[in-house]
Amino acid sequence: MASGISVPIGTGSIDRSVVERIVRQVALEYLGRDKSKGAPALTVQASARHMHVCRADMDVLFGPGSELTVEKPLFQEGFYAAKEMVTLVGPRNRIISNLRILGPMRKESQIELAFTDAIMLGFDNIPVRISGDIANTPGAIVIGPKGVVELRRGVIRAGIHVHMNPAEAAYFSVKQGDAMKLRIGSKAGLTFNNVIVRIDPGSKLNVHMDTDEANACGLHLAREYELFK
Amino acid sequence: MASGISVPIGTGSIDRSVVERIVRQVALEYLGRDKSKGAPALTVQASARHMHVCRADMDVLFGPGSELTVEKPLFQEGFYAAKEMVTLVGPRNRIISNLRILGPMRKESQIELAFTDAIMLGFDNIPVRISGDIANTPGAIVIGPKGVVELRRGVIRAGIHVHMNPAEAAYFSVKQGDAMKLRIGSKAGLTFNNVIVRIDPGSKLNVHMDTDEANACGLHLAREYELFK
Repeated sequence: MASGISVPIGTGSIDRSVVERIVRQVALEYLGRDKSKGAPALTVQASARHMHVCRADMDVLFGPGSELTVEKPLFQEGFYAAKEMVTLVGPRNRIISNLRILGPMRKESQIELAFTDAIMLGFDNIPVRISGDIANTPGAIVIGPKGVVELRRGVIRAGIHVHMNPAEAAYFSVKQGDAMKLRIGSKAGLTFNNVIVRIDPGSKLNVHMDTDEANACGLHLAREYELFK
Repeated sequence: MASGISVPIGTGSIDRSVVERIVRQVALEYLGRDKSKGAPALTVQASARHMHVCRADMDVLFGPGSELTVEKPLFQEGFYAAKEMVTLVGPRNRIISNLRILGPMRKESQIELAFTDAIMLGFDNIPVRISGDIANTPGAIVIGPKGVVELRRGVIRAGIHVHMNPAEAAYFSVKQGDAMKLRIGSKAGLTFNNVIVRIDPGSKLNVHMDTDEANACGLHLAREYELFK
């Protein structure tokens, strides 16, 4: 158990926090900044209900070989709200029209709803998942201008998450899949206790919550955000 | 500064917590229970959008001298969801039909909406208020089976709050209007940081949140609640 590194009393191996501190130090030095310069700028956004579409479903919904067109770029580089929209039919034939597609296309179609949307549509329960994790999720019928697709799965409520790049992850001493906390200061202030970390080299620090979460905390009234471990 | 009571170092007067501890002790002894018996049972409920109606508006909406009829008693003694419902017309002529009235009648009519409802109706902003505090709030048009009322004010988003009786308030060492915290444990777990205390001798310990808050924290999935100061 003896080692050249100072190990906190009570642990039987090198403490995780020691390693994290070293990694963080290295990353911060590499970036030429230190903690006194403060945390990276944090953007917090609400995602309204939307669909991600795969090539095969795009062919059916909008015609063979059709492409998504950019309506509005999103905060994360390369992602956008598309001009294309679909109609979503829930399990009791209730409908949401003008469901926006977000681009670019994905390997598998997926629909992200707030619980309020899901209840309105008649879903008994939709699972809280990180985007892309859609095993054993309910399906739905999707109607486009050129055809109808029956999704066998893919309807989820996206869990609140924070995108960041590896340097930002090092700053916060977090790794892929960790849970962080986000405090929103407003008259309806609250703290999200399970903000999942998603690290990608192309990402900028950015929290995504859904409209229920944004409306619960009064995101439009918020004067301060605090992201912490 | 000297006194017969032990005063924590660093305070220049009798510490608030000392007084609170004494009051709490007395109240608990009075009730014949102590802390080892645990906290009072906590019920957490979501309130869907609803209306409170005054006598004058009731006369117009449902006819002179009409009375509310009980559809379902609420958790708090003497309160109920009424059979009576109205149609609410927002600022851009958008509509919510079947808006439930909660009884009994009040001195002044009031409408409580979630932000999701308010946005859907076209309100630019509704204030977060404690029920009854409706100075400088927006109005709306309300349609009943016998007539139409134009409310000059009274549309609010009710701030999350906790009802309790004085003994329960003593248990938590809180007073009227204090803010408490409520942690909801679920996959979408979060902590409400501004749960306003409302003390009334007839109350039973009970948190009321709106549907946005319930859907944000996945109240239907919650396995644990923790109310604390």
